[in-house]
Amino acid sequence: MRKFKFLLGGVFALAAQWAAADEGMWTFNQFPAAKVEAAYGFKPDEAWLKQLQLASVRIAGGCSASVVSPTGLVMTNHHCARECIQNLSGLRKKDFNRDGFIARKPSEEPRCPGMEMNQLTAISDVTQAVRDATQNAAPAQFNDLQKAAIANIEKNCATSDEWRCDVVTLFRGGEYNLYKYRRLQDIRLVFAPEDQIAFFGGDPDNFNFPRYDLDVTFLRIYGADGKPWASPNYLPFSKTGVKEGELTFVSGNPGGTSRGMTVAQFQDQRDMRLPNVLMQLSQTRGWLSEYQQRGKEQLRHSNDDLFGIENSLKALRGQHEALADANFWGLLQKNESEFRRKIITTPALFAQYGDVWDSIAALTVKAQQQRKALNALEGNFGSTLMGIARTTWRHAEEKTKPNGERLPEFADARLPELVQGVLSDAPIYKELEIAKLTYGLTKLREDLSPDHPVVKKLLGNSSPQQLATVLIKGTRLHEIKTNAKGEAVGGLRKTLWDADAATLAASTDPLLKFAASYDAEARAARKRSEEEVQGPLKKQQERLAQARFAVYGTGIYPDATFTLRLSYGRVVGWEENGTVVPPFTDFAGAYQRHTGAEPFALPTTWLKARDKVDLKTPFNFVTNNDIIGGNSGSPMVNQKGEVIGLVFDGNIHSLGGEYGFDARVNRTVAVHTQALLEALDKVYPAGHIATELRKAQRP
Amino acid sequence: MRKFKFLLGGVFALAAQWAAADEGMWTFNQFPAAKVEAAYGFKPDEAWLKQLQLASVRIAGGCSASVVSPTGLVMTNHHCARECIQNLSGLRKKDFNRDGFIARKPSEEPRCPGMEMNQLTAISDVTQAVRDATQNAAPAQFNDLQKAAIANIEKNCATSDEWRCDVVTLFRGGEYNLYKYRRLQDIRLVFAPEDQIAFFGGDPDNFNFPRYDLDVTFLRIYGADGKPWASPNYLPFSKTGVKEGELTFVSGNPGGTSRGMTVAQFQDQRDMRLPNVLMQLSQTRGWLSEYQQRGKEQLRHSNDDLFGIENSLKALRGQHEALADANFWGLLQKNESEFRRKIITTPALFAQYGDVWDSIAALTVKAQQQRKALNALEGNFGSTLMGIARTTWRHAEEKTKPNGERLPEFADARLPELVQGVLSDAPIYKELEIAKLTYGLTKLREDLSPDHPVVKKLLGNSSPQQLATVLIKGTRLHEIKTNAKGEAVGGLRKTLWDADAATLAASTDPLLKFAASYDAEARAARKRSEEEVQGPLKKQQERLAQARFAVYGTGIYPDATFTLRLSYGRVVGWEENGTVVPPFTDFAGAYQRHTGAEPFALPTTWLKARDKVDLKTPFNFVTNNDIIGGNSGSPMVNQKGEVIGLVFDGNIHSLGGEYGFDARVNRTVAVHTQALLEALDKVYPAGHIATELRKAQRP
Repeated sequence: MRKFKFLLGGVFALAAQWAAADEGMWTFNQFPAAKVEAAYGFKPDEAWLKQLQLASVRIAGGCSASVVSPTGLVMTNHHCARECIQNLSGLRKKDFNRDGFIARKPSEEPRCPGMEMNQLTAISDVTQAVRDATQNAAPAQFNDLQKAAIANIEKNCATSDEWRCDVVTLFRGGEYNLYKYRRLQDIRLVFAPEDQIAFFGGDPDNFNFPRYDLDVTFLRIYGADGKPWASPNYLPFSKTGVKEGELTFVSGNPGGTSRGMTVAQFQDQRDMRLPNVLMQLSQTRGWLSEYQQRGKEQLRHSNDDLFGIENSLKALRGQHEALADANFWGLLQKNESEFRRKIITTPALFAQYGDVWDSIAALTVKAQQQRKALNALEGNFGSTLMGIARTTWRHAEEKTKPNGERLPEFADARLPELVQGVLSDAPIYKELEIAKLTYGLTKLREDLSPDHPVVKKLLGNSSPQQLATVLIKGTRLHEIKTNAKGEAVGGLRKTLWDADAATLAASTDPLLKFAASYDAEARAARKRSEEEVQGPLKKQQERLAQARFAVYGTGIYPDATFTLRLSYGRVVGWEENGTVVPPFTDFAGAYQRHTGAEPFALPTTWLKARDKVDLKTPFNFVTNNDIIGGNSGSPMVNQKGEVIGLVFDGNIHSLGGEYGFDARVNRTVAVHTQALLEALDKVYPAGHIATELRKAQRP
Repeated sequence: MRKFKFLLGGVFALAAQWAAADEGMWTFNQFPAAKVEAAYGFKPDEAWLKQLQLASVRIAGGCSASVVSPTGLVMTNHHCARECIQNLSGLRKKDFNRDGFIARKPSEEPRCPGMEMNQLTAISDVTQAVRDATQNAAPAQFNDLQKAAIANIEKNCATSDEWRCDVVTLFRGGEYNLYKYRRLQDIRLVFAPEDQIAFFGGDPDNFNFPRYDLDVTFLRIYGADGKPWASPNYLPFSKTGVKEGELTFVSGNPGGTSRGMTVAQFQDQRDMRLPNVLMQLSQTRGWLSEYQQRGKEQLRHSNDDLFGIENSLKALRGQHEALADANFWGLLQKNESEFRRKIITTPALFAQYGDVWDSIAALTVKAQQQRKALNALEGNFGSTLMGIARTTWRHAEEKTKPNGERLPEFADARLPELVQGVLSDAPIYKELEIAKLTYGLTKLREDLSPDHPVVKKLLGNSSPQQLATVLIKGTRLHEIKTNAKGEAVGGLRKTLWDADAATLAASTDPLLKFAASYDAEARAARKRSEEEVQGPLKKQQERLAQARFAVYGTGIYPDATFTLRLSYGRVVGWEENGTVVPPFTDFAGAYQRHTGAEPFALPTTWLKARDKVDLKTPFNFVTNNDIIGGNSGSPMVNQKGEVIGLVFDGNIHSLGGEYGFDARVNRTVAVHTQALLEALDKVYPAGHIATELRKAQRP
């Protein structure tokens, strides 16, 4: 379960009416320790929280992870490191996703191209400063003014490339907090199991339980000195494991939830946005899976894409099914009516906030009208090279502007991450790029119609496939040279990135010229959206958040924002159609589920190890922690702060968690730490990693 | 715009509140001639109606057509004859869909494998007989009792293989009519233009206007004597063409509409059924379009499938968008509240019908629960060979039962059509069949879960692709031999079709064994649906229809049922975003839209003929006739009963016509007869067909 960064829309404050036992993705600086104490008799103190915070790291691409040894060993999910593993496979002409990877010593640990991790070091409140900047602003100006203020705050905080600073909008404008991160950019691969066991059961079992997945990859953080990162902030593995009913904490980065949306916005999700995205993902799934029939190489280099598409598809389908469920929908409606009734029946509140729902509904309609053009023109048509071309083109212009006036992703505080992505030497497969761009351009024509001026200009007399073939075959933007540290040192891509606008305008690279040809229209669409929808919506949602605080107080948690959150809960099964689903599975179950045919085929290593492993070893388990996509790779710890599990999924009912938490059935799925140690020791020749983990354990 | 027979669900009575000028798909025996006279000053009489009825023919696969010469020449759409054209291409190793086809004389007209047309000869009312059979029946028995009564009525009517008789449920049980058809089974190909001009603009322009399509194919009906069918019931081409504002009639077979559904059922469509079908079609579209990259042969043999998928996808997407539109939805809700209010405020009606909406809502929920399993087990997993295997297996059992107890498609009156399909020599492409079955089995596992007993039994230790490959490669059910008349005379398929159950049980054909292995479960799922959903729903919908008659009287039209209907209207454009769309296009516009790249590439014949044709020739035009998928190929006639156009599509707003007719924007799209004659004369060497058409004209 990964964060679907590109798919998720806005992020809103939580409707407090849903609050139930153990619900909530809490920020570390407003964690309800007293509430936990009341329920479980344990109260996390400041030091406990701080250690967990600093040992938790975020993967820039959209996952969570944790440091689990004093020499920088990092634990995350296999599906969070797939891109690294696939990139390394491409560079070495191997297939490490299929075959697994084990470094026997640090010198065998290869660097993941373009991978970055962030450690959250400090949180501070900047609500007043952000709000002052937009006081009395006209709706159309709101976005620009806020953007400038935020860029300024972030720049002053990120004093060097070592730091990343984000102003995070909590409660959709109820609060603005500044999150300061240490950037960790030298990440190397230590251990990955085979895809077959990391994702045993494949798409059919995804988001299901009982489950039998060793969804783990170990990485290692290296410091600027080229040595393993020695940090005192790590989480030791528990020696005792975990029992049913035991208190559990999950520290990670839930990507986004929409629990605080208004009903008009839920309706937009159910009737417009989700059906469209689901159709697009379905079609992509279709052509990608058939593309894999072209040959082994195509199978290998598109596997990561297909995994991502199927994962998103299943997750969003679950979200849609939740909204399509009459009971769930009824609850969403009821929550809003109760909230509105409280506003309506208090004259002062009504005068101040009475119109906010209608305002948001009107802006939602406007967003619908603009959505297709905006997504098409700002979406790079699904092609990596196209994204590189467009970012390169814009960079030349943006870098000449004052910090506060740039597109947010080009602001000083964010630029390093952008550069890391554009100038990485991750392999690019032109055959796949042609297929992606063909699909993207076909969708462009479908969404805007063949008669739209931009479509006419871009396609001219070509078919999408003809055009995509010419552009991708002709471009040299794939050319990049990096040094041992992963820094770009040469190649056309690097040259163009450093060039000024005049030089780029004179370039004959067909893809760069193509990107340039519609940049004015794309910028205009984005500007229009910011002025007419996003800015005004931010303003209305600030008001909605204030109304919510006025009615429900501040003891509520904000919607997820792909920032560090802490959830508490316990190990517990659930009832499915009258049958209780027990919370644990074991190794024996995996062997029982093996049929020999993908995706129910155990790898040879596991089949060979059958007599060696303890079949009673707990494998996966479930808890009622409140998580969502982006929490993948999160450490699960006990009250001693020791790792007991590795979060990798939610059950099918967890998907509705996007819009509300159903305490009866929403469950987190994790790999048991004993499964990790048993596999490292007995299935793989990786006892040295188990030893490193055991050394870190407390006596 | 074809009938999507396999996609459409139930058929319901019309909500009279939608009624507006020119709206309605009227039956020929209850045509509102007085209403037409009041609006247009012309009153069609009995003879006029009868001639039009008898000259209209239905294509069994899901289209409309008309006889246009005294020697059996039939006009329909190219997209209605695609399957015939593709089948003939396969048999002759040509690509007639791509290159077009012209027979210079009758001896060059090849027979379309498996194609059948039906001429509606008589309509009679059998409401009383059908209703008597189910009087006082328990809900679970309703379906069986009605099925037996209907099979009996149909059998008594269809006295030989020359006839087909269908009891048609109108107003969803408000009336039952017996439709008697002459079966026309020797259909031959006369003329087809190239795909490029028949479907110029392709999927992007589908359901759009302005339009420039020569979407025509001429076929010829042959009699049992092997000679062209000489019938006095044909429609001559008009000599004068048609003007803006002129009265127009469309006679054809709209496949199905759902205007009389309840809001609970609309909700099911919007939130459950349509999103699921749209995702399936999208995924199929994806893999089919990528499958076409395998090579030229694969491109050719899958083109018809891809066309059908994209056509359905766009149509159903339009339906979903209509339901997702807040205004449209509001109108549906308002219609129902008004209807219900009238029932509620009349004590006698309330006592009789007050509970019908809730009953239907409850049955809709039950249908949702059963839908996935039912569709999966009864859907042949999308494979033609699988369908043949299953039908063959069931036939051996069904033919030993009394007529009234068989599955309806095996009843005496329906069996000939079934045989015509199963024993046709239409080519089968095993490579494509493997791909389809792989997809279908993957969906089966996805829909029912890998742990469902049937899924476990069917897949065993195989992946869907492994299993599909073994089954399709191993089966010999593709083996069929036919004589010149298209009758099956040999091959394993024919042998097994004629065999008894014991012989089939002993067969080693892997696909037949596979079909047999889950037939009990499939029958049980169907039975359960009939007893728990379909029967009870029929009963409730009879009551709903009676309630509607009680409130609105009988001067309303029934929802479409893929039976012959007559619509009246006029040539008129519409307003789109404040701009008026004029009703006619001409040849010049087609040349302007030509870019040279598919699907905007005119064929060479047209490029060469540019200087010969009259560029002012009207090409396509729109009217406000009320039609829907299934009306493709319908003749459009003037008040003299002369053909002025060939219906081939609706505009994008027509798609909402599934649920309600929006008179302001819903438009029918037709090919102008002058375009047909000009193209036959000057673009193609087909002047002999133009001559045949002109000979038939009235002086």
